[in-house]
Amino acid sequence: MSYQAVNFQNKLGLVNERWSPKVIAEMNDYQFKVVKILGDFVWHDHKDTDETFIVLEGRIRIDFRDGHVTLAEGEMYVVPRGTEHKPYAEQEAKILLVEPRGVVNTGDEGGRRTAEDAWI
Amino acid sequence: MSYQAVNFQNKLGLVNERWSPKVIAEMNDYQFKVVKILGDFVWHDHKDTDETFIVLEGRIRIDFRDGHVTLAEGEMYVVPRGTEHKPYAEQEAKILLVEPRGVVNTGDEGGRRTAEDAWI
Repeated sequence: MSYQAVNFQNKLGLVNERWSPKVIAEMNDYQFKVVKILGDFVWHDHKDTDETFIVLEGRIRIDFRDGHVTLAEGEMYVVPRGTEHKPYAEQEAKILLVEPRGVVNTGDEGGRRTAEDAWI
Repeated sequence: MSYQAVNFQNKLGLVNERWSPKVIAEMNDYQFKVVKILGDFVWHDHKDTDETFIVLEGRIRIDFRDGHVTLAEGEMYVVPRGTEHKPYAEQEAKILLVEPRGVVNTGDEGGRRTAEDAWI
């Protein structure tokens, strides 16, 4: 029997909206999500969990209240739980997120940027 | 303050041995590890956890008792807990593993391929 790998570019090809993470795989109670981002997101944090950003294409900056980190393709960063952050991309970037099932993209902030998690 | 991203190629440049996963980041109680592989590994499973393989460079095959999956660069696969598997690479491949802290690379099999987890 031949099993099927999950291809990041194929999955990203199914994503039409920005800032809308789509689940592509699960490991235990964690999820892998692809997301396209452009411009500024809202400031938020996740009180109960770290959050992993892996850049698949492009370049992003994650702003913190006391600084920032810049990530290019092939780089990752783990935002510690409870740390306010605001992702930003000057040009469209494609990201892989890893975080526990049930994490909301806007943390406790809510608002119009809050996305429903969906599988693709 | 400027924080530092984790660069996969930089970390892989610090890896001299094959089949020896090196921890590059932690998210909650999970670890991200880079590893270089070539040839055949041993059959093993992880009774209590799924295990994620992401191919950073090259191409690998993961054999199962009833089939296999082939992964190219930019592809991932989650091996379900308790599933016997044997990674293989015809030419050297560079992999990112994601799994809970404390997972042993050879599962319960042990033997000379068992590696101590170390940070780089």
